[in-house]
Amino acid sequence: MKEINGGVCAPKGFRAGGIFCGIKPSSQKRDLALIYSEKLCNAAAVFTKNRVKAASVQLTQKHISAGLLRAIIANSGNANACTGDAGHAAARKMAELAADLFAISPGHVAVASTGVIGVPLPIAAIESGIEALGNSLQGDEAGHAAALEAIMTTDTRKKECSLEIELDGVPVRLGGMVKGSGMIHPDMATMLCFITTDAAVSKQALDAGLRRAVGCSFNRLSVDGDTSTNDTVIIMANGQAGNVIIEEGTPAFELFSQALEKLCVDLARKTARDGEGATKLLTASVSGAKDEETAEKLAKAVVSSSLVKAACFGADANWGRVLCAMGYSGADFEPGEVDVFFAAGGKEVQVCQGGVSLAFSEDEAKSLLSQEEITIRIKAGSSSGSAEAWGCDLTYDYVKINGDYRT
Amino acid sequence: MKEINGGVCAPKGFRAGGIFCGIKPSSQKRDLALIYSEKLCNAAAVFTKNRVKAASVQLTQKHISAGLLRAIIANSGNANACTGDAGHAAARKMAELAADLFAISPGHVAVASTGVIGVPLPIAAIESGIEALGNSLQGDEAGHAAALEAIMTTDTRKKECSLEIELDGVPVRLGGMVKGSGMIHPDMATMLCFITTDAAVSKQALDAGLRRAVGCSFNRLSVDGDTSTNDTVIIMANGQAGNVIIEEGTPAFELFSQALEKLCVDLARKTARDGEGATKLLTASVSGAKDEETAEKLAKAVVSSSLVKAACFGADANWGRVLCAMGYSGADFEPGEVDVFFAAGGKEVQVCQGGVSLAFSEDEAKSLLSQEEITIRIKAGSSSGSAEAWGCDLTYDYVKINGDYRT
Repeated sequence: MKEINGGVCAPKGFRAGGIFCGIKPSSQKRDLALIYSEKLCNAAAVFTKNRVKAASVQLTQKHISAGLLRAIIANSGNANACTGDAGHAAARKMAELAADLFAISPGHVAVASTGVIGVPLPIAAIESGIEALGNSLQGDEAGHAAALEAIMTTDTRKKECSLEIELDGVPVRLGGMVKGSGMIHPDMATMLCFITTDAAVSKQALDAGLRRAVGCSFNRLSVDGDTSTNDTVIIMANGQAGNVIIEEGTPAFELFSQALEKLCVDLARKTARDGEGATKLLTASVSGAKDEETAEKLAKAVVSSSLVKAACFGADANWGRVLCAMGYSGADFEPGEVDVFFAAGGKEVQVCQGGVSLAFSEDEAKSLLSQEEITIRIKAGSSSGSAEAWGCDLTYDYVKINGDYRT
Repeated sequence: MKEINGGVCAPKGFRAGGIFCGIKPSSQKRDLALIYSEKLCNAAAVFTKNRVKAASVQLTQKHISAGLLRAIIANSGNANACTGDAGHAAARKMAELAADLFAISPGHVAVASTGVIGVPLPIAAIESGIEALGNSLQGDEAGHAAALEAIMTTDTRKKECSLEIELDGVPVRLGGMVKGSGMIHPDMATMLCFITTDAAVSKQALDAGLRRAVGCSFNRLSVDGDTSTNDTVIIMANGQAGNVIIEEGTPAFELFSQALEKLCVDLARKTARDGEGATKLLTASVSGAKDEETAEKLAKAVVSSSLVKAACFGADANWGRVLCAMGYSGADFEPGEVDVFFAAGGKEVQVCQGGVSLAFSEDEAKSLLSQEEITIRIKAGSSSGSAEAWGCDLTYDYVKINGDYRT
């Protein structure tokens, strides 16, 4: 497995593009993206579990039910959520506009939106920009980058990943992009994630692989505890790599799933690091738990705790808050068996042993916690369950960004 | 029912006091409190559900099991949590020191602690101060105030309430104090709440009344989503009012329970308003839900949302975040039936009708949301379930306070 460049355009047969059409008039930044496959793709998707779902999510859920896609059209600057019948009509119109560009079925187009909730989507701007959007498509890194820019909101970094593996002696590629910075919490996160692959994969295997990968990546991610109305992860597989079609339960499925999981974990970590106002990436790494589910609960509670997050911002080795968060996680563990370590930059300091304080160097701990990537390593007992979860620090800028998001 | 003064010393037969003994050397503020009853009291208590429980909580759970108390000794500046065997010994020692003052049984003393987790409790400081603590007891407002000061940590306001009702033609009083500012989330909150009453109440009735009152007050309160290791609510009833002993299921029980609920709701609201860094009290008031439990889930999710809290700090009428929080609450409701109003200072503006945006005056909304007490009123449907929950805004100061709490 090797890392490559190109994002969603790295796999064969995919083009992407992005333009400014007028949904974000104040910033004049790109706000409309398109990803297109030359051939019909097997496709799978995972959506927000929020009961309030954007019109775009509801439409894409319908379209994905047959497991086939040719294109994804997505906008930023407006979530098209809580927008009533007009919102549903606008989502349908987006799919039709994209379909008309290529004379394909609107049912083969996925629609995604991100931005402010409850404001009517300016569909006229999308309609007037659709021709330019079609013309912006490119099959290379530049096309990928333009599409990625066009789905960003408060994101400050481009979050992308592409990988190559070999199956049946042929190279198979996967590429992905993700946006998401605030309203990020499992399950899942205010994020849009689009993944392409030229692998030949059956619909069932694609769906199973995606669910597995999302389960141990985006569903272990928290920025602020708010699960959004728009979360969407879509994967499109066009089969152009020429490998034997991947079916569940085969060695090829395992290889492909591992690559997909690696890609999703990479994108999830990048999303945590780019959390609104974040200055640091936090990883909670739990081992020794009763089982993986227990480890996951513990790790998620630690990275979701406002107090742990604020302590990391202040580089304060306040490990009691780690134990406190574990304690209210609902997970089964013995407080008296817990060891806690802070780690960064290859160094580690133990701060708690058997649930009780250890003498440790505050200076050393402060120096570790001042770095950009901090791991809170927790031995929760002597069993074999382990899991990681990702989050970020809680900063003044988070409050600033969200105190007046709409203006 | 009327409001009176005096706090925990308002009911007959109670004395209270507080001193500085040396647990908070940097601030030199009072750090050790005592509440004492002349007569043996029927008593009840509710504790944190955090799996990691302070040594003081574990000891008090044992002592309260017989339903009898004479005194409460409490310290601030140290949580005596995650402190191992030494912590358990220190908690027992605290009970013994208080018991020795009055030649009573240590089993009739409740112990409570609040402050930093994982640091050994300096029991020698408490031992050296115990005589002075005993001498500080007073049966009036001043005694109450000194005890309350001695349990405060990052609290900025004194949170107290006392009420008088009439039962069997005699006045019966209840008085309470609460501390709590951060690490506050149902169930319950990093809070210590001590309530006294001179009512004659059976143990069973006292326990039932306390659980009912806590359920619709402190358990509907969130500051930061972190449930602490030390939460404790204790009520002591010494019977000196001379009323007929209150038993469950009687009209007197209903009257007494209503007063206790009013007192707890008042203290819960004051705790939310004094949340770490808070500039505003938020009330989510849900009606029209399927049942009270559903209304409670919805109301709690709204006041717990970081994004709603940050928007209130910025006086930004971002009602989409209210719907979003309702959506991930796990409660059963129809998004298309939701109306949302912002209210403050006797005025109200509707921002959402049937789950969709309404045209409203941004200026008017901004003016409402700039006030110190904001109500987010939600009609979740046309059924009869209703509930309120309380929280506060998320501010720069919350981050500042918690970025470096220990130093």
